[in-house]
Amino acid sequence: MDDAAPRLAADMHALGARARAAATAVRNAEATARTAALTAMARALRTAAPEILRANADDVARARENDQAESFIDRLLLNEARVDAIASGIETVAALPDPIGAVTEEWTRPNGLRIQRVRTPIGVIGMIFESRPNVAADAGALALRAGNAIILRGGSDGSASVAAIIAALRGALRSVGLPEDAIQVVPSTDRAAVGMMLAGLDGAIDVIIPRGGKSLVERVQTEARVPVFAHLEGVCHTYIHAAAKPHEAIALAVNAKMRRVSICGATETLLIDRVIAADLLPKIASALRERGCELRGDAEARAIVEMNAATETDWRTEYLAPILSVRVVSGVDEAIAHIAQYGSQHTDCIVTEDQPARDKFLREVDSAIVLHNASTQFADGGEFGFGGEIGIATGRLHARGPVGAEQLTTFKYLVHGTGQTRP
Amino acid sequence: MDDAAPRLAADMHALGARARAAATAVRNAEATARTAALTAMARALRTAAPEILRANADDVARARENDQAESFIDRLLLNEARVDAIASGIETVAALPDPIGAVTEEWTRPNGLRIQRVRTPIGVIGMIFESRPNVAADAGALALRAGNAIILRGGSDGSASVAAIIAALRGALRSVGLPEDAIQVVPSTDRAAVGMMLAGLDGAIDVIIPRGGKSLVERVQTEARVPVFAHLEGVCHTYIHAAAKPHEAIALAVNAKMRRVSICGATETLLIDRVIAADLLPKIASALRERGCELRGDAEARAIVEMNAATETDWRTEYLAPILSVRVVSGVDEAIAHIAQYGSQHTDCIVTEDQPARDKFLREVDSAIVLHNASTQFADGGEFGFGGEIGIATGRLHARGPVGAEQLTTFKYLVHGTGQTRP
Repeated sequence: MDDAAPRLAADMHALGARARAAATAVRNAEATARTAALTAMARALRTAAPEILRANADDVARARENDQAESFIDRLLLNEARVDAIASGIETVAALPDPIGAVTEEWTRPNGLRIQRVRTPIGVIGMIFESRPNVAADAGALALRAGNAIILRGGSDGSASVAAIIAALRGALRSVGLPEDAIQVVPSTDRAAVGMMLAGLDGAIDVIIPRGGKSLVERVQTEARVPVFAHLEGVCHTYIHAAAKPHEAIALAVNAKMRRVSICGATETLLIDRVIAADLLPKIASALRERGCELRGDAEARAIVEMNAATETDWRTEYLAPILSVRVVSGVDEAIAHIAQYGSQHTDCIVTEDQPARDKFLREVDSAIVLHNASTQFADGGEFGFGGEIGIATGRLHARGPVGAEQLTTFKYLVHGTGQTRP
Repeated sequence: MDDAAPRLAADMHALGARARAAATAVRNAEATARTAALTAMARALRTAAPEILRANADDVARARENDQAESFIDRLLLNEARVDAIASGIETVAALPDPIGAVTEEWTRPNGLRIQRVRTPIGVIGMIFESRPNVAADAGALALRAGNAIILRGGSDGSASVAAIIAALRGALRSVGLPEDAIQVVPSTDRAAVGMMLAGLDGAIDVIIPRGGKSLVERVQTEARVPVFAHLEGVCHTYIHAAAKPHEAIALAVNAKMRRVSICGATETLLIDRVIAADLLPKIASALRERGCELRGDAEARAIVEMNAATETDWRTEYLAPILSVRVVSGVDEAIAHIAQYGSQHTDCIVTEDQPARDKFLREVDSAIVLHNASTQFADGGEFGFGGEIGIATGRLHARGPVGAEQLTTFKYLVHGTGQTRP
């Protein structure tokens, strides 16, 4: 064991150097080469499905031996349909416009200098994820579409599945003449390897993206010495304003909470205006309860509908479960103040037909995604038209909201002169 | 002294909380209010010029007592013309379009959801600078244009000048009904205050911008726990390709190096193609030497023009002085490789009339600013048309190149629905 630490450090350093070299090659390649690689990756996954499913069966058997919960095993489990869905996802990414080299702004200065702002790849993405093996393929494809290399570190539970998937993707890269090291998996399960990634692997990693539970994201946000694209949690709100259409308010509250309770865009707190609460809250409550949702309310809400009391903790809680906290507010200002105090700057919605209230809410709520008359469950890269997402970010810089291929790029300025010197 | 540390921590925490509250008010204010504040700030500076110059005289006298170098005193010194220039700079910023709320992208999804990407302020900027008092006013104005609050920490040498400038700016904010705490100065000269800022002041600071010498920037980049917009150094290159116009190559090399040797966009290394070096390098060398520039070359350059030898260190050195390192290369690939190995991803230029060489250089050089046939000294927010700059960034995320008002914004997505629920 004495030799393990320096050997791990040397291995990780070499892995970082290979990623950096591959990133340069992928960046300088033509868009058509990246597209060809993505198409080949989808094909390779379908071809390798038998090997991938065999590897996955080993992972699942091991998880069962370790008495993992059924929900855990479901996240880990692959079958033919799921492998096919992963391949189709990569085909969707292959069909996206290649963002690299796109001119996003262009202007000419009085001295004749023409300045262009063009998209370039970020460089090397570090991805740390937990049990879902499909994350490796989704992230690898989006990183490549944006001209980046990626270093993946998955949980040990899915390691055989991930290895099989990545072997197929690397083969596809080779087959089109791109370096296979554009997609690498950290071979060690040593937790120290994660620490090295969070330190940036001697400058080889430009950004870290964690994908998994709150404790993983918390560790990454606390320890990372390089930028992080992540959200710690989605404490999302749906606010029913006095001028909401009642049937729309009911439908949106139900969908925002109950369509899938486990995703980060699920609504956790319902805010409702006092003047309509006595009439509308009972209807919303019964629609939610029909679908098995528990309600926890403030005193005013409980005076209208019988429910458990919400504590201070409830307002800050991302349940990820069929539970909704409910608060009666005096109007849009109090709703905005509640969201500012308790929200996580992820996704929040106002339901109203009133234009001034809508405008104020859209303007003053400082979250990555602010919706009007639409379910918070639309907080998703696919629903935004990004062709997939590597995650959702609530940080303030560079990437906010769904992180797709475009958000995995940066930019540089090209300045076109005809011999200009500066006076 | 026992009480100092907890008191400083409490003071800094309160300062951060005031900045956060002011940031919300400035963000939600109308663009016209921010413009009015900027106009009032310029007027207030002109009115307060006598007080500012008296305070500056005290700072300068203290600096002379401390035997500071003349170059240091020149950076510190204000006079009527310089105060007027600061006020004019703020007027330029006041005339810029307000970036907040601008829709930068907009699209509609097949389900009818209309999605807008709109600019929003970053929030609270932390600025750490050294002796130039004008930095406080420039940074305060740009931060406000972008709807942010700012916390300034200057060097002790200019503290009286900065205090007088900031008093004028805060008075102007009050006069238009915006919170004066949108611009604050850290009152303590304790170095621990800088440490607290670098830790993010309990979440109150969103980004840190250092402005000063390399040791300051190095400390900030190493210690900061929040994102940093900065450049450690500008090791900028001018590459004279075989197909350069000779007279243009000479003029650009001289301007890029010698116009001002002390700015980060000054060229530090000249790369020149072998096939033209014997003819052109002597002409470039004599034009540079006429203006007092020392040359340090590789063996091939020295075989053509007598000069000192460049060591490995020279290729990595930002001289900020009339010294130029010179290397003969075989063509555009070797030039790009040299820049990748030794450059600082700041600003690099190719001089050529050859389109494939130009395109390859512009595409493959991975720097914030890449120029064709123009002086590297154009690396400047004012020259880009940004109406000023708070600094130049070489980091890869969010802001790269000159950081003006627009680069001090972030964005959010507004989603406009008509009752859509997610299937």
